[in-house]
Amino acid sequence: MSAASRVDLYPSRSTPKPRFIERCDPVVYSEWSPGAPLARDKVNAYERNGFLALEGLLRADEVELLLGEGARLRADPAALEDETVISEPGAGAVRSVFKIHRQNDVFARLACDARLAGIAQFLLGDDVYIHQSRLNYKPGFQGKEFYWHSDFETWHVEDGMPRMRALSMSVLLTENTPANGPTMFMPGSHKRYAACVGETPDDHYKQSLKKQEYGVPDEASLADLASSGIEMPTGPAGTVVIFDCNVMHGSNSNITPMPRSNAFLVFNAVSNKLEAPFGPMTPRPEFIAARERTEAIMPVENPLLMSAA
Amino acid sequence: MSAASRVDLYPSRSTPKPRFIERCDPVVYSEWSPGAPLARDKVNAYERNGFLALEGLLRADEVELLLGEGARLRADPAALEDETVISEPGAGAVRSVFKIHRQNDVFARLACDARLAGIAQFLLGDDVYIHQSRLNYKPGFQGKEFYWHSDFETWHVEDGMPRMRALSMSVLLTENTPANGPTMFMPGSHKRYAACVGETPDDHYKQSLKKQEYGVPDEASLADLASSGIEMPTGPAGTVVIFDCNVMHGSNSNITPMPRSNAFLVFNAVSNKLEAPFGPMTPRPEFIAARERTEAIMPVENPLLMSAA
Repeated sequence: MSAASRVDLYPSRSTPKPRFIERCDPVVYSEWSPGAPLARDKVNAYERNGFLALEGLLRADEVELLLGEGARLRADPAALEDETVISEPGAGAVRSVFKIHRQNDVFARLACDARLAGIAQFLLGDDVYIHQSRLNYKPGFQGKEFYWHSDFETWHVEDGMPRMRALSMSVLLTENTPANGPTMFMPGSHKRYAACVGETPDDHYKQSLKKQEYGVPDEASLADLASSGIEMPTGPAGTVVIFDCNVMHGSNSNITPMPRSNAFLVFNAVSNKLEAPFGPMTPRPEFIAARERTEAIMPVENPLLMSAA
Repeated sequence: MSAASRVDLYPSRSTPKPRFIERCDPVVYSEWSPGAPLARDKVNAYERNGFLALEGLLRADEVELLLGEGARLRADPAALEDETVISEPGAGAVRSVFKIHRQNDVFARLACDARLAGIAQFLLGDDVYIHQSRLNYKPGFQGKEFYWHSDFETWHVEDGMPRMRALSMSVLLTENTPANGPTMFMPGSHKRYAACVGETPDDHYKQSLKKQEYGVPDEASLADLASSGIEMPTGPAGTVVIFDCNVMHGSNSNITPMPRSNAFLVFNAVSNKLEAPFGPMTPRPEFIAARERTEAIMPVENPLLMSAA
């Protein structure tokens, strides 16, 4: 189907006024049964709030392995594909590395870990693939804030993701406390789509990775979406925070001495692969939004320390 | 005594390397007795941590009165002394109003409220006066961070406060949650003085009210001072957070829709009045650091709603 004749269920950045569009996609795509990879109350909490923290999903030795690999990657950015390395505005320290599941064997194994990919398959009711992966490092003392956004708004408008059938998993590699700038969520905000105003310039992504300027919800919509409060899941390293593609989230700055690092994986349903962007721009590159390498993941049991055995 | 011949117990901004100086002043200057205005465990916690939150110290109707007065003051900055009004960088909204206890009758009554001034007299073991007062308003969505600092470092170097015998009270006029950028403290940090490097230009205060650039502790000292963790007292409006003049504190940004407002009072012991600054600058103006109007407060029981009775 040509992009022009498609129905756009979630239009954004195309009207002069912000508005809400009710979500017409499920949040949880599978029926719960005793064999599900998540307890029933956790599935219900995810459906209701749009996010869920699973403490202790990874063991300490696995976290140590991932932290070590992460430090190695950040210390030698020259060994990585140039465009996948994002630096802090100003200071220049490496803030994120994209496409880690294609550039590093340990993170490749993390992406197919059954404890993660199995839950993604269950919640999305389909085989899954990695839409985006990255290693995030928010330094102590100078970690910048990240303003409120729905990932899906960007993935839909800029990448052509048709439906809300994707989720993110943030694998905490350092402790999240209320003080060191953890991700904040607006519970229940994933059930409405906050269509943003304004148009998006081409090649917008190069700037938006550092500072969001387009696809930014207006303050009145945000105040409305925050009417059930704001929550910040905290937990020790090894906690995995799962969140729906449309939940409103962001983070404050981090002036504490404690850095915050996580491995970030976006799982998309294979039935929900990217089309042409719904906005008027050229698609973003493969390292931000997988379009070519979208083969389904075959979940593997405990793959992280395989080679160490 | 001339400034040149004085012994400076807490030198800062005068050496090329940062260093710690042990505090040689008490934290709590009175012996506890059953008649004290604070329970013994609270006094002990204040002595140990350098801060204390007293929930429910003000009643809801008193908070409402203060909020209303605060909104009125911020809405009509032209009615205030020009230099006492500080605006948010960029946006221009009023962020702070200084010297509120001399410009507004309600805040004048707050400053002599026995529930606040009586505790200050007890902890400082002396009659007290207001060294500085202000109304703070940190807006939702765009509240800026405030980097780590010891108030005493500035008051000593820039204002000539000789000893650590002062404390601040932050009267919360809105709820503090972990998410809306509340003040964070490093417990126990008040027992060491982090001498900062670098010199201070004259008239520095005009910039420092917006962004701190001098008297900034180095990262290694901060990491050391944070070894007992970082705490952020939270509580409903009406909570009063008391903190020692030398405790290390700061706050992250606030992207939540919730504004954060407080009335801020610094009590100094009358035996600890300002001298010439210990740094090489001219004294800051009266509205930031009282030097002329330092008469002792006579605490009054429940003065806030007196006129409404």
